[in-house]
Amino acid sequence: MLKDVVRTRSYQNVITQNNFLFKDKIVLDVGAGTGILSLFCAKAGAKHVYAIECSQMADMAKEIVKTNGFSEVITVIKGKVEEIDLPVPKVDVIISEWMGYFLLFENMLDTVLFARDKWLADDGVVLPDKASLHLTAIEDAEYKEDKIEFWNNVYGFDMSCIKKQAMMEPLVDTVDQNQIVTNCQLLKTMDISKMSSGDASFTVPFKLVAERNDFIHALVAYFNVSFTKCHKLMGFSTGPRSKSTHWKQTVLYLEDVVTICEGETLSGSMTVANNKKNPRDIDITLKYAINGNRCKVSRTQHYKMR
Amino acid sequence: MLKDVVRTRSYQNVITQNNFLFKDKIVLDVGAGTGILSLFCAKAGAKHVYAIECSQMADMAKEIVKTNGFSEVITVIKGKVEEIDLPVPKVDVIISEWMGYFLLFENMLDTVLFARDKWLADDGVVLPDKASLHLTAIEDAEYKEDKIEFWNNVYGFDMSCIKKQAMMEPLVDTVDQNQIVTNCQLLKTMDISKMSSGDASFTVPFKLVAERNDFIHALVAYFNVSFTKCHKLMGFSTGPRSKSTHWKQTVLYLEDVVTICEGETLSGSMTVANNKKNPRDIDITLKYAINGNRCKVSRTQHYKMR
Repeated sequence: MLKDVVRTRSYQNVITQNNFLFKDKIVLDVGAGTGILSLFCAKAGAKHVYAIECSQMADMAKEIVKTNGFSEVITVIKGKVEEIDLPVPKVDVIISEWMGYFLLFENMLDTVLFARDKWLADDGVVLPDKASLHLTAIEDAEYKEDKIEFWNNVYGFDMSCIKKQAMMEPLVDTVDQNQIVTNCQLLKTMDISKMSSGDASFTVPFKLVAERNDFIHALVAYFNVSFTKCHKLMGFSTGPRSKSTHWKQTVLYLEDVVTICEGETLSGSMTVANNKKNPRDIDITLKYAINGNRCKVSRTQHYKMR
Repeated sequence: MLKDVVRTRSYQNVITQNNFLFKDKIVLDVGAGTGILSLFCAKAGAKHVYAIECSQMADMAKEIVKTNGFSEVITVIKGKVEEIDLPVPKVDVIISEWMGYFLLFENMLDTVLFARDKWLADDGVVLPDKASLHLTAIEDAEYKEDKIEFWNNVYGFDMSCIKKQAMMEPLVDTVDQNQIVTNCQLLKTMDISKMSSGDASFTVPFKLVAERNDFIHALVAYFNVSFTKCHKLMGFSTGPRSKSTHWKQTVLYLEDVVTICEGETLSGSMTVANNKKNPRDIDITLKYAINGNRCKVSRTQHYKMR
């Protein structure tokens, strides 16, 4: 994961270019992994960094902190954020790389919000503090054929019942920006410094306007992350027009091939919620409609990330 | 997995080109998945096929069998091979795609052997009936730098303790045949129709002779599978000189960079065994030595697949 340069360099730049946020501050690193963010913060002059990591990687992080001479500044705590005791009542900064695929799949957001509510000082900052989900539409004839229509004829056999399943599973994959047919729309912004856990479930409308005559085979969701407390706005995008990250994009195939003309609108809504039975799974409901010159469609589709 | 064309086409060719093995026979498909092998067997004239699958995929397989009109010939049984009852005392053919990475990692071999001992008729056949493990040596300066030396300096920090871990983890990856420096040696052949479960743990010697002056950064293991009961020998290889499969190859990085001259020998032994604590993990011990013109090395390295 350290090899995702966009991600790690973004955090590195945020921390090293904004020493004023860290100098003599108490920092909490939620889900520290190898401890890389804690090391950046220590180097930026933090008074102390508490690096919490529940996996075996905590042992590595301890060794790495020692090897690099930061044992006095960084304390690695092996355990769950919800269960551990911090040796200080409050922290000035909470930093975390909590984002999952589709922003919200298998993420650590709830853990960050728990840490914020328990330990963040009144004038403390959460890094990053903004995350937004975006939507666009793509032409994807070739890959839809490969990934979905494949099941119609598998070595001569009809496995179309698997096709139904495949359609319901959002696909994490890299989309070429040349496939984009419409504008990209902001669906939802989350303010990590203020939001509650429930704000990660929502229904939001969208209107995607075609920028050329084309076919739409799928909608594509991606997220941006911002650090608005920096000296100047910093952040990164996981969209198809940006350098690709390990998060890639999330592709939702449509039942219909939508024939859309330049200027026409595909409108609808997206509902995102944790599955009631398995809260780690995410249910996505997509309603979409077009009343165009060459295509009239109105449909509701259900997806499940698991 | 169906999209691994080498694999599925091999099984398809074995079955469709050797009807005599299936015509009017009782077939047991161990770990049937979507039921594709059972469908091939049914089409080849099997009297009856019992397709055992323990995952949810069994429900899909039932639907696929029905959709394709084979409900009379194929019975999908949802459950574990070790726990289910078969409606017949004996079967004529056991077919299975049981191989894991490095042939033996997270494989279903024990389950196939269990089924063989319990249900296979005296003159019955197991398909495939031969599996062999092979070894060669490669030049891999570029990737070793990426994957292993990377940890020496991660955004300015020394994470070499992770390097030690990374070295111990065999890497499943595709190797370019141009990287091959030595001959390819057969390490071990297993006869699925006769072997016992314990035969999958072994120590075998090897002698790899350099075909050119080069450096060796890693040894590479791969496997071949054969169906010797066919009219003519059939099978496939997962080696770096064959069309790549989802099994790729297994790369074992060496502590040393071995400077080898054409005609010189890197010799040693490989020990493969299930980990005593976690039997799903595989422990690999590699001893290698060279007493060459430009390089003298003798070393033992331990790896763990998990």
